[in-house]
Amino acid sequence: MKIVMVGEAATHREMLAAGLDCPAQFVALPREAHESAAWDAQIEGADVLVSMRFQRSGAAPAFRLLQVPGAGLDGIDFAALPVGATVCNVFEHEIPMAEYALACMLEHQIELADLRARFSTEHWTGAYLKRQPRGELFGKTVVIVGFGRIGQAVATRAQAFGLRIIAISARAEGGRVDGPMDEAYTPGELDQALSRADFVILTCPLNERTRGSFGATQFAAMRQDAVLINIARAAVVDPHALYHALRDNLIAKAYLDVWYRYPRGDTDPVAPAEYRFEDLPNAYCTPHASGWTHGLFERRYAFIAANINRLHQGLPLQNVVTNPRPV
Amino acid sequence: MKIVMVGEAATHREMLAAGLDCPAQFVALPREAHESAAWDAQIEGADVLVSMRFQRSGAAPAFRLLQVPGAGLDGIDFAALPVGATVCNVFEHEIPMAEYALACMLEHQIELADLRARFSTEHWTGAYLKRQPRGELFGKTVVIVGFGRIGQAVATRAQAFGLRIIAISARAEGGRVDGPMDEAYTPGELDQALSRADFVILTCPLNERTRGSFGATQFAAMRQDAVLINIARAAVVDPHALYHALRDNLIAKAYLDVWYRYPRGDTDPVAPAEYRFEDLPNAYCTPHASGWTHGLFERRYAFIAANINRLHQGLPLQNVVTNPRPV
Repeated sequence: MKIVMVGEAATHREMLAAGLDCPAQFVALPREAHESAAWDAQIEGADVLVSMRFQRSGAAPAFRLLQVPGAGLDGIDFAALPVGATVCNVFEHEIPMAEYALACMLEHQIELADLRARFSTEHWTGAYLKRQPRGELFGKTVVIVGFGRIGQAVATRAQAFGLRIIAISARAEGGRVDGPMDEAYTPGELDQALSRADFVILTCPLNERTRGSFGATQFAAMRQDAVLINIARAAVVDPHALYHALRDNLIAKAYLDVWYRYPRGDTDPVAPAEYRFEDLPNAYCTPHASGWTHGLFERRYAFIAANINRLHQGLPLQNVVTNPRPV
Repeated sequence: MKIVMVGEAATHREMLAAGLDCPAQFVALPREAHESAAWDAQIEGADVLVSMRFQRSGAAPAFRLLQVPGAGLDGIDFAALPVGATVCNVFEHEIPMAEYALACMLEHQIELADLRARFSTEHWTGAYLKRQPRGELFGKTVVIVGFGRIGQAVATRAQAFGLRIIAISARAEGGRVDGPMDEAYTPGELDQALSRADFVILTCPLNERTRGSFGATQFAAMRQDAVLINIARAAVVDPHALYHALRDNLIAKAYLDVWYRYPRGDTDPVAPAEYRFEDLPNAYCTPHASGWTHGLFERRYAFIAANINRLHQGLPLQNVVTNPRPV
């Protein structure tokens, strides 16, 4: 099999090779090869192109499988693909993202770092005798907006803590949806569910329906003691409404791992948002780290290797993405 | 019903009253009433004595039920109880303690507070582009020493994260024990299990068998990347062996919520241990906070009210502790 790996993907060549059952020839190309024809001679005839992005203005080189090493397809121009090419993607980020979401929820209830900061031999007597009771996850309610792989992975873990799960999903019908939940509602019914939430976790995709969909109306519907956790995309939330909700204490806290602007290179001085959220004491800001684990890459490249083994054996591929061009 | 509440218990009178179905007369007594006969006239004839402790050198006043508002019975001198008195205790701390244990495990993998500290508008480009992959709980192994209510509550939550559960319990037989686990071994088999642990969580009671039972041999059996979480009693762990294991990096980290010495009053300058664990970067020290929640008291006093309602209705009591004196 001829396997062409583009950009960051090329750094995982050994991880991929370890899972292959078939002979393989690897070609590593720079990030620009996804949109420039300059490397097409090296791509031409490949069995597999591993790349997060693929764009062409003219004819594309021939290859059989475009294996995207992530879930997002926003970098793929399906119209530019060579005829007959199949596109597959890969998930596995639902595990670390769900762990991150639960870590935020537990941090809010326990404030472990604050407990540690209060502990010292000098302050032991006071720290022990003046302990203030804290909160629990048990018995609380979480509204999970978007109930795909990530939302369901959060729900599985949250249920084990005795949290009530309200799923918001376009597939909800009659108060139910597939997956671990207690109740389910459509996005149009979100605002009624919000007043019941101790936690609201955004895990929905960013699209034209969800962009800016969480705004002043939604913050007004939340309780003042409720917490927002955004691990989806920043642009799902209206930044002005978010900043004012936190500054004016319309909600208790927000855990924000996703941002409005990302650097395009080492020297790009772009700000993550037009507001300095990190200056608000009730904004807990982290640098898009929710899914970034060793395990993520291990599972993804094990999956990709298995898919390439299937291609080699003529078996049906997994995670095939609908290709709008006829095969 | 005449209900006498001693010491700290008396502060929860309203919470208790809210759950009662029967008329009640409350008497609040100071902490000393548990061991001094000076208040016996007020206890005499009580239906219920709510107290963590009860000791007498001479005759005891008559009462029907000693309801301990906690799990521990080390404050009760059973030989001093009036004839016919029943003793009940109450649990409910397994929920906050299990949440605390999972918070520690997630803190170790994610280090959320460090992620937050690294985030700012000024450092956004570097913080984002130079993210280092972190670890996951998924697929790891936890050895839970003591598999009673607390150990099982930890296991229920840990299983939802995809952790493998090895239970250490005197009731283990043929590699199994009741409760959510994958494998189970007796305390005598602990050392063999330790080398497989990513996390070791102590939830066993302190008794003559467990005192000092986790020492140099056990730290030597653990892996250098393993983490100890002690939410049981400090004295289960040999303090010298623990200090040296952390200082010499025999293990990666310890989360320590329980201590060797406790203050007997506001002005008692006692140190929590003979070593300054908090000066070790890999000791995460907290002031015995794992079970201390609002929900703990709400559940405990709801349980106690229900037990008093049963006493009033002549129904069997719950959580009856074996009374060594004949009834």
